[in-house]
Amino acid sequence: MENNERLLIIHADDFGMCHATNQAIIQLLDEESISSTTLMVNCPWSLEAAKAAASNPKYDVGIHLTLTSEWDHYKWGPVNQNGNVDTLVNEFGYFPADLEKVAQADREQVREEIIAQIETALKMGVDPTHIDSHMGAYLFFMDIHINVAATYNLPLRFTKNPPPGYSLESLEQVAHLADSKGILYPDNVVALPFILNEGEGYEESKQNAINLLKGLKPGVTELLFHPSLDTEELKGITDTWQARKYEFDIFRDPEVKEIIREENIKVIGWRELRDIQRGVEK
Amino acid sequence: MENNERLLIIHADDFGMCHATNQAIIQLLDEESISSTTLMVNCPWSLEAAKAAASNPKYDVGIHLTLTSEWDHYKWGPVNQNGNVDTLVNEFGYFPADLEKVAQADREQVREEIIAQIETALKMGVDPTHIDSHMGAYLFFMDIHINVAATYNLPLRFTKNPPPGYSLESLEQVAHLADSKGILYPDNVVALPFILNEGEGYEESKQNAINLLKGLKPGVTELLFHPSLDTEELKGITDTWQARKYEFDIFRDPEVKEIIREENIKVIGWRELRDIQRGVEK
Repeated sequence: MENNERLLIIHADDFGMCHATNQAIIQLLDEESISSTTLMVNCPWSLEAAKAAASNPKYDVGIHLTLTSEWDHYKWGPVNQNGNVDTLVNEFGYFPADLEKVAQADREQVREEIIAQIETALKMGVDPTHIDSHMGAYLFFMDIHINVAATYNLPLRFTKNPPPGYSLESLEQVAHLADSKGILYPDNVVALPFILNEGEGYEESKQNAINLLKGLKPGVTELLFHPSLDTEELKGITDTWQARKYEFDIFRDPEVKEIIREENIKVIGWRELRDIQRGVEK
Repeated sequence: MENNERLLIIHADDFGMCHATNQAIIQLLDEESISSTTLMVNCPWSLEAAKAAASNPKYDVGIHLTLTSEWDHYKWGPVNQNGNVDTLVNEFGYFPADLEKVAQADREQVREEIIAQIETALKMGVDPTHIDSHMGAYLFFMDIHINVAATYNLPLRFTKNPPPGYSLESLEQVAHLADSKGILYPDNVVALPFILNEGEGYEESKQNAINLLKGLKPGVTELLFHPSLDTEELKGITDTWQARKYEFDIFRDPEVKEIIREENIKVIGWRELRDIQRGVEK
């Protein structure tokens, strides 16, 4: 992280979300086409993902802390078994689909639930490299997430690029709190879609990704996306299946791998940040 | 139900279990290749199934009361949000995979959970025609299930063919209790697999099903099976995918439909039993 070096974490969200996503992420990890992923402990297929992580210690797997269940027909809910979760769920016991409901959740219930998610991952045999947040739900409870990151001594995804409704001023407060606890986070987090305009196909999406790579700023950047196979299961879950399949293909593409080499981009994982945060000698 | 008439309920278990199973059962219901199904409220895809049931009132949909989560990588747990479920779940909050654990569950927790499953189905817009039980777990709590069937005035799957470890004597007690509450149940329940010997292909499986149909006894018989499409999702869930795909194909097969006609088998649903139980005039 010195001078103008560009370090890149190539990160897949949603490990455990469904079988098609598990198959994709396991393949990308095995091929080293991505350098990191985060596990959605709450999802129906999380055990498959967790078992893969537990039996492949080289996988860089964090926890995708989850407070929403956003698809119409395929659902999940809290894992906390020891406390009240009634402000976290809808009438069916699922997490709400949208962030507005999450914003109204009881803070103590949020804290207990995210701790339960990390503890469940540990019980499943996962040694998490970091934590991040599904759909950015942590933005409503950033202090809680930073305190939990400190408890487990884990780095945390944190973006200084303000999302809508979130001021730069409050982001500076968050950064100050994280710094005061010794929590590491990337210099940049990029979550742009690779399909930038409706109707773009694979080649345009790949070119958008290449442009992103060429435009990377110095420092540590996390580039996050949602790769998946495009099976009947995924198509039943989400209309975004085509984008997710492209996101599976793009970082396996020899042309993209060549760009990363040409641009002298150094690919790292979150484990490197965790090692620094924990003072682990190389 | 008079003389030697043979009435047949062609029933698919596991509606809601996964997307591939939902796709199969919806198609079979639309084609009238099956006459009944039961919803697994607890499963990740239950809302898809429940919405289909709610928007197609002709579908004959009961509740597949569930106390087990039997696959290694794809899991579910209780829906009861208002009471303790700690004897119903494993360390991850899932139902146990095997019936031995279910047998040790707290009776009051079982009662509250199965009521919560029925109430959740009602909230999802399902008007259940009957109740039955996933993996026969109700055999440990038959009195509870009969009392719940009486509360909702629903018929109940109940087999007088004793499964291993269950004596004819206790079945007679169960029948006596159901009779005393006015709960209807079929004369026969047939849950034989269509693949009777390892290595049998589709044609042998179909022939086994035809032999079953030809050998039907007089009275009301429920013939139950587990049809599904054989997608990557199903193959990720269970090694039984080939049998489940055959079970999808067999009752759509013109030869099987012709046998049902030739044999003068009258196909009915559970709704007919519910109507009789409730004294509904035709």
